[in-house]
Amino acid sequence: MADYIGRLGRQELEAKGITGWNWGFADQVRFYELDALNHVNNVVFLKWFETARVRYVQDLGLTSYGPGDPQLVIRHQTADYFAPMHQNESYVVTARTSSIKSSSLVMDYAAYAEGECRASGSAVLVSLEQDGKTRRPHVAEAVARIIEEDGAARG
Amino acid sequence: MADYIGRLGRQELEAKGITGWNWGFADQVRFYELDALNHVNNVVFLKWFETARVRYVQDLGLTSYGPGDPQLVIRHQTADYFAPMHQNESYVVTARTSSIKSSSLVMDYAAYAEGECRASGSAVLVSLEQDGKTRRPHVAEAVARIIEEDGAARG
Amino acid sequence: MADYIGRLGRQELEAKGITGWNWGFADQVRFYELDALNHVNNVVFLKWFETARVRYVQDLGLTSYGPGDPQLVIRHQTADYFAPMHQNESYVVTARTSSIKSSSLVMDYAAYAEGECRASGSAVLVSLEQDGKTRRPHVAEAVARIIEEDGAARG
Amino acid sequence: MADYIGRLGRQELEAKGITGWNWGFADQVRFYELDALNHVNNVVFLKWFETARVRYVQDLGLTSYGPGDPQLVIRHQTADYFAPMHQNESYVVTARTSSIKSSSLVMDYAAYAEGECRASGSAVLVSLEQDGKTRRPHVAEAVARIIEEDGAARG
Repeated sequence: MADYIGRLGRQELEAKGITGWNWGFADQVRFYELDALNHVNNVVFLKWFETARVRYVQDLGLTSYGPGDPQLVIRHQTADYFAPMHQNESYVVTARTSSIKSSSLVMDYAAYAEGECRASGSAVLVSLEQDGKTRRPHVAEAVARIIEEDGAARG
Repeated sequence: MADYIGRLGRQELEAKGITGWNWGFADQVRFYELDALNHVNNVVFLKWFETARVRYVQDLGLTSYGPGDPQLVIRHQTADYFAPMHQNESYVVTARTSSIKSSSLVMDYAAYAEGECRASGSAVLVSLEQDGKTRRPHVAEAVARIIEEDGAARG
Repeated sequence: MADYIGRLGRQELEAKGITGWNWGFADQVRFYELDALNHVNNVVFLKWFETARVRYVQDLGLTSYGPGDPQLVIRHQTADYFAPMHQNESYVVTARTSSIKSSSLVMDYAAYAEGECRASGSAVLVSLEQDGKTRRPHVAEAVARIIEEDGAARG
Repeated sequence: MADYIGRLGRQELEAKGITGWNWGFADQVRFYELDALNHVNNVVFLKWFETARVRYVQDLGLTSYGPGDPQLVIRHQTADYFAPMHQNESYVVTARTSSIKSSSLVMDYAAYAEGECRASGSAVLVSLEQDGKTRRPHVAEAVARIIEEDGAARG
């Protein structure tokens, strides 16, 4: 699996003044992310958080999303919007797990630009079998790693 | 302005067993709304709620989104997901205002299919001048109408 | 499978002054389809054509897109844009097959609003096995139906 | 204006074995770009070409897309698809102008991954005033630069 373009770790995030996160990626606003008000549409931030989530759970070993591996589905999410973003702006999206149980977890996300947090969010995720219904416990190693790296509370 | 295709009022919603809402529209899942897990992506529900919101605030008179009219921007939103949706499924999205202040409001949304609520959401919206910064009070007539029709609390 | 909301047949299309097509659907521009220039983004027309295509090939029996059924993938497509479209505009998208071979077909699409064609397109589609590689011949009944209904040339 | 993340010039492209192009950018497939067939949707390639186009015409000086500057709208586009792309795949999108007239131009695009061209496209673009109707001649310096850098034919 190719390295994520723009992938940032704790030290690189801290060098940008973004503290409290171990996992992030850098990117830039594209034209198709703007809406008719000429700023990044509110839903696009949730796509950025999804991009972070998908790669984060692959990196940390919760799932590969492949056949035989757990599905991770969203039960609840929130987003707060602090300031608009515009065409070509560079930004960093961060992700971490705040708590994890045997077959669910709670994640936090944020989008930073020019040193300020433009939007943040959270999501409650549930681990399911490929049938999309039955709960499937997390891989123990991934849980241990998430607790160690992110300081996630064991729920 | 053309009538919304699939626009439903209180009576039509109640005839479908959907109570507590005055405003809704009917639609159907399209292929581009599915993700790689072959169900409607979580972000798509928020696009449906946006579609409802944009048309609702136009219908109720808060803004036309045109030059000179207020911008309505999102400060906070939440979504809860109860059951997945699939290609070609018919659904109804509903919208209402739960509370309204001089230059902000709180809206609720839901998506129903086959008589059950598949997802719900809420949004805190702020009315701004075209500069995207200065608060702009709502049109008084729109506020009165929203309180009357939706029973919104005056915040 | 639920009926397509807004589905139009030859007579309904002709009643709207749209001739030469047997298959169409009516819809309305949504906020998320606008780009920063405040008109429908060029790529969105191709999503509309996709929505038509997916439902057309299901209606005509080429594939259900389900397990065991052929995949239909795009090899080539074109689009021509004649006039912009805006928020809330009602439109009709039409689809037909111009020629069909044993495991491929060529389709035409158009988007009409206020009696004029705003955009048109075409696509070359190939029928594949679920492996996404091996050619799979069309269902003979679907081919016969497409030739009869659309007057498609047998390639 | 921030540098484009992943922006590649002629030498960097040639180092990747991609010849005949002066302008490109590197990126990676995101989850939201996949469709229900679990590969990158055909329309997404056109979004990538749009991302290239918007930044290319800003880089080359045809427009900033800001107030007072020309609008560049699409009249015609084509796309050819050679092989599917999947989650996390790294790719390079390239753009160039093949011919340019006083108020229009023809651009080519391609998407490369693992040394092969997965999709290509072309677009006919027209330069308009902010009214979206009246033709507006290109900036002479931008035309000269495009002819020099891309070897575009003067139409």
